Amino acid sequence: MTSVEGDGGDSTHLVEDSVEGDGGDSTQKRQGPGDKALGGVRGASSMASGWTKVSCPCCESDQVEPLVLVQLGAFVQEGTKKWLIKLIEASSKEGGAALLAHPGEDAGGDIIVVSAPRCTLLRATEELGLCKTHRTGDMAAFSCHDRDNFKDTDDLQVFLTLAERQYVVKYELEGLRAQRDLRIPGLSDRLTLQHRDGIWQKLQQAGVIVDVFPLHDQDKLKALRKAWYTSNQLAQPLDAVQAYFGGNVAFYFSFLDFYTWSLLPPAILGLALTYFSAGVQKEALESLSGSGQSSSDDEASLSVSGHMIQAVFSMLWSTVVMEMWKRRSSSLSYRWGSGHLAERFTEPRPGFHGQLGVNPVTGRVEPLFPDWQRQLRVTLGSLPVVVLFLGLVVLGMLGFYWGEAQAKGLHREWDSLLSQVLLYVPSITHIVYTNMLGNVYRHVALSLTEWENHREESVFQNHHTAKVLLFTFFNYFAVLFHIAFYKQDLPLLRKRLASLLIVTQLVNQVTEVVIPFLVDLLVSAPRRSEHDDDPQEDKLRNQGKLPAFPGLFAEYIELLVQFGYLSLFSCVYPLTAMLLLINNLTEIRSDAYKICNLFRKPFSAPVTGMGVWQTAFEILSFVSVISNCWLLLLSPQLREFCQEGGISGTNIVLLAVLLEHVLILIKMVLVFLIPDEPAWVRIQRQKIEFKSMLALREQL
Amino acid sequence: MTSVEGDGGDSTHLVEDSVEGDGGDSTQKRQGPGDKALGGVRGASSMASGWTKVSCPCCESDQVEPLVLVQLGAFVQEGTKKWLIKLIEASSKEGGAALLAHPGEDAGGDIIVVSAPRCTLLRATEELGLCKTHRTGDMAAFSCHDRDNFKDTDDLQVFLTLAERQYVVKYELEGLRAQRDLRIPGLSDRLTLQHRDGIWQKLQQAGVIVDVFPLHDQDKLKALRKAWYTSNQLAQPLDAVQAYFGGNVAFYFSFLDFYTWSLLPPAILGLALTYFSAGVQKEALESLSGSGQSSSDDEASLSVSGHMIQAVFSMLWSTVVMEMWKRRSSSLSYRWGSGHLAERFTEPRPGFHGQLGVNPVTGRVEPLFPDWQRQLRVTLGSLPVVVLFLGLVVLGMLGFYWGEAQAKGLHREWDSLLSQVLLYVPSITHIVYTNMLGNVYRHVALSLTEWENHREESVFQNHHTAKVLLFTFFNYFAVLFHIAFYKQDLPLLRKRLASLLIVTQLVNQVTEVVIPFLVDLLVSAPRRSEHDDDPQEDKLRNQGKLPAFPGLFAEYIELLVQFGYLSLFSCVYPLTAMLLLINNLTEIRSDAYKICNLFRKPFSAPVTGMGVWQTAFEILSFVSVISNCWLLLLSPQLREFCQEGGISGTNIVLLAVLLEHVLILIKMVLVFLIPDEPAWVRIQRQKIEFKSMLALREQL
Repeated sequence: MTSVEGDGGDSTHLVEDSVEGDGGDSTQKRQGPGDKALGGVRGASSMASGWTKVSCPCCESDQVEPLVLVQLGAFVQEGTKKWLIKLIEASSKEGGAALLAHPGEDAGGDIIVVSAPRCTLLRATEELGLCKTHRTGDMAAFSCHDRDNFKDTDDLQVFLTLAERQYVVKYELEGLRAQRDLRIPGLSDRLTLQHRDGIWQKLQQAGVIVDVFPLHDQDKLKALRKAWYTSNQLAQPLDAVQAYFGGNVAFYFSFLDFYTWSLLPPAILGLALTYFSAGVQKEALESLSGSGQSSSDDEASLSVSGHMIQAVFSMLWSTVVMEMWKRRSSSLSYRWGSGHLAERFTEPRPGFHGQLGVNPVTGRVEPLFPDWQRQLRVTLGSLPVVVLFLGLVVLGMLGFYWGEAQAKGLHREWDSLLSQVLLYVPSITHIVYTNMLGNVYRHVALSLTEWENHREESVFQNHHTAKVLLFTFFNYFAVLFHIAFYKQDLPLLRKRLASLLIVTQLVNQVTEVVIPFLVDLLVSAPRRSEHDDDPQEDKLRNQGKLPAFPGLFAEYIELLVQFGYLSLFSCVYPLTAMLLLINNLTEIRSDAYKICNLFRKPFSAPVTGMGVWQTAFEILSFVSVISNCWLLLLSPQLREFCQEGGISGTNIVLLAVLLEHVLILIKMVLVFLIPDEPAWVRIQRQKIEFKSMLALREQL
Repeated sequence: MTSVEGDGGDSTHLVEDSVEGDGGDSTQKRQGPGDKALGGVRGASSMASGWTKVSCPCCESDQVEPLVLVQLGAFVQEGTKKWLIKLIEASSKEGGAALLAHPGEDAGGDIIVVSAPRCTLLRATEELGLCKTHRTGDMAAFSCHDRDNFKDTDDLQVFLTLAERQYVVKYELEGLRAQRDLRIPGLSDRLTLQHRDGIWQKLQQAGVIVDVFPLHDQDKLKALRKAWYTSNQLAQPLDAVQAYFGGNVAFYFSFLDFYTWSLLPPAILGLALTYFSAGVQKEALESLSGSGQSSSDDEASLSVSGHMIQAVFSMLWSTVVMEMWKRRSSSLSYRWGSGHLAERFTEPRPGFHGQLGVNPVTGRVEPLFPDWQRQLRVTLGSLPVVVLFLGLVVLGMLGFYWGEAQAKGLHREWDSLLSQVLLYVPSITHIVYTNMLGNVYRHVALSLTEWENHREESVFQNHHTAKVLLFTFFNYFAVLFHIAFYKQDLPLLRKRLASLLIVTQLVNQVTEVVIPFLVDLLVSAPRRSEHDDDPQEDKLRNQGKLPAFPGLFAEYIELLVQFGYLSLFSCVYPLTAMLLLINNLTEIRSDAYKICNLFRKPFSAPVTGMGVWQTAFEILSFVSVISNCWLLLLSPQLREFCQEGGISGTNIVLLAVLLEHVLILIKMVLVFLIPDEPAWVRIQRQKIEFKSMLALREQL
């Protein structure tokens, strides 16, 4: 089912074959004496010299791997560029980033290629709190003092993944702070840096730096493509994905994988129920013989017990799946060394502003912003705005219904071609309205979250995600809830759900892959005409012509909405899981194709899991109990059944409420009983913590 | 309202006056040259010499404070006692406890008095993870290496509280492990120690050690008594309680204090509603003029709106109170230095057994017991047994109702004196049955939890408490729930609640204080006849004659049941809060009297809060929403009101369900929004964590 855990079958093999094996290859290349002309640098054939020098003897090597490309503004003068290179090169004591810079073949050009020397990489690994394989074979929080006891610290290309190395460059660049008030050479006096200003952010705001992106490694990418979606195996090479694209992307694909396979049980159950109930109905019809009209009415409906089974199963299934995913997530996190990230006392995020002061916890001088003020902004600013937008969604929906009724009325009166056309007006207006609202909201949500002025990047992301999520959820499900709970029209709900599942999934697949593919073909054509003997620099530049990776937001939302269809309404339409399963099997490949080919390589911070998305899925899974119990209550079959049994309406409601409470209790017990991490991960984590405690005791 | 936090008014003063000031006193005594004959030891006048020697020069002092008394079995020979003293005295490298021992005046007697030298106290402080005041004024995790930077490390009597010093002795004694296979001198060969055996536990099992208890310090106790319950102020001297009795006891009294004062708002609301609705009813009656019979029926009932207000208020109140208590609890925990206890990698609890092996986390040799086996025991052993007992409670209740009906039937038939007596048989049988069941269950719960074989003391406590709690909850509330939800008889519920509140509280107060007081007076008479010139040793011995402190279990249960009456059923009987408030104001004093006078001083481990009780209160607060919504639904006033308004029965139920869901949502939002610790505690905690992180980074 999965490719990472277990006895290291398929995937480990894959990794070695593709990425790590490839690393071995190029190590040989590097050492080959005949390659001198190419510089021997992995994938950077024509950039052998021209790199800035390293100060530390242990970092010296005759090959430098280009990691990140910095695109400068067209107006930037050579003096500014030189100053910037010097800054990148300078040691951290001098306020620099302690990285390696290359001005490009033509030193006057508008790019700087950046790489990282060994010492900087190791120091950053420790600062980020990454875990690496210790001599003993266990993972342990890396520390520079103890570096000799960690595996592969000689070969940084093995020690850190490509994604990690590139993230370290970004981390160091964005951490640059002015050590004193400073004028930047070649720029107007308007743009001076104050003490402790974030240099990189200022330069980006001023347009000196237009773009920063990590560079593809074509050999590795080729191997990854092959292992990921060209061949036919079911398992994804998750370790290789993590190594190449980083934790963020790898966790998304791991979840997609896990979730897709866990759709199997409900899909089979749904199929069985549909088949079985169809059989029962046929028999019933045959025994009644002749009254064929009722069959068209109930065609997709199920028996009461089928309904019940489907509902109860899907409610418990969603909890078990999320709990199992937590376990898998924690073992992946341990495996990828991101279980003990030192996120807590990091520098404030770039956009954070406030009065300069001393951080009471760390004692560092940095901008401070009082908590109560932020809380006030969230409560009195953001919350009302979000509620307003949610209101607008509801308003739009009501407007649509009103318009539809009006149009139908007119059509009945006039019955002309014009009125026929008029019938489509409400739908079209509603679609346009919804899209516009969505676009406006996206901007509003971002600005609001910026305005809330969160100190930590992760908190910022959480607040932003929560805002967008709430809106999207409303936007997608308002109509369905309206049909289910207000109109109480189950057949309509069933039809709507089926059409949503089939149509929107198809549309999504097309817009997500086909359109970017066409754009890529037409707009980014130059890259297509690349030849092997083109200068290295041009190849790097060409990567910048691809559109930036839009992030995984849309992908996660899509999964969440799917999960919503399934857990909230599945008892109405039992084939949901089957349709989603088919959709996701292609989705995995198309998403993989997309991220490999159609966009620039994204930066990816090491992460412990899905973050706020985990919570979103869990909340949905609890809401599903309420929704399903209500839908059961509404089902005409149950009503008939109860009327036959002589149970009063009030008592049915009470039974449904009881069922709901019991199911929620069972779900909570399940959440409590299933440990969030497998025993072996727990022991390893405690080992790391125990070592920390011992070290601390020695130290203090 | 409270005595600890705030601008250090009352209570800080109190502490200095009573306990710390007293410490100052005796320091003077110690240094007074004329006191040489008494040995100058605080409260241990006749035990000046005879203590074992310390090996470390910094620990030497000419006064030793007797902390703990070890009572040996009558059959113990002098050789065994000498061996034990040597063990207590030996350094930890030699497998000893590194404490000080005194064989008593008559060296052949059956007691050993134990004290602790400076170095052992400091080391244990670090091992336990206690926080102490740093030079900078903040609290910081204490470490021996850094000892000079902490305040008061010269004077251990100020640095550690009496309760902490005594706990350290217990901790060291119970941590004694045999370093190799060993025969104990003077005991039969049957009793030999294996490598890594817990010596103390073995000796207790063999009856060599009969009793271990901490000794009272009469001067301090006198001062504490005065500040706590003799004088008339409302605030409790919580800091002094913490210093003398330790964290466990102090947290109980802090919660009692906090909870009692937070009863004020519902008490006032309840009074107002009762008064107001009585007025309204009077008016209504007067306007109807004459139909006085209906008044007796509804005498204590409220108007619909009053009901609603009371119910909604009490549901939200319970959440707010528990959240505010969490904040207070965390600030108390910081204040008392127990915020960062190193509980996680402690040695297994005494009763823990299993195959000897290497702990995968710490690498220590210790008994191991597989998790899955424990889980199996919990699921297949304990759970069914607990459910069985809950079933027995229900069975008892049903039997009672059946018996009552039978007795009434007989009485109607016979109508004689005999049948009159028969009427009481079911009640009495039920009471006897319930009591017996409770007693049996208490033993069963303890043995089951022992059998589950938990490694950590805290986990053991949690499992045990959870078991007892579930049963007690059932036992107390089954009848009330039965009346409310099955019989749906609100007037009966109201009567039952009122009688429970008034009668059981009175009975509790009496049994809790008066009976132990009488026992104390009659049985422990010798202590009463104590004179100032009695030998010190006799005084110490006399303390052993008091009964052991039964723990705070019963007290917490009492509070929880109170809280249950209030939050689950308060909308039925609005005066509940007022009655509880009055009860608790006396409860504080009587509990304080009890713990100071009627029992031995208990050992008290440093704790971070109320532990599992916190969870119990929170769960109750959520269950209360369901209960209150149901009671609202049942109230005849609401039914009438709805019938007048023409709302159907089903719709009322749906409205109640909606209200329930909304209230639970609001409660969850409240829990989420109110931070669990005040900002200043958070900053201080993060400071400690940041320091740890820095230290770790340096170290590794």
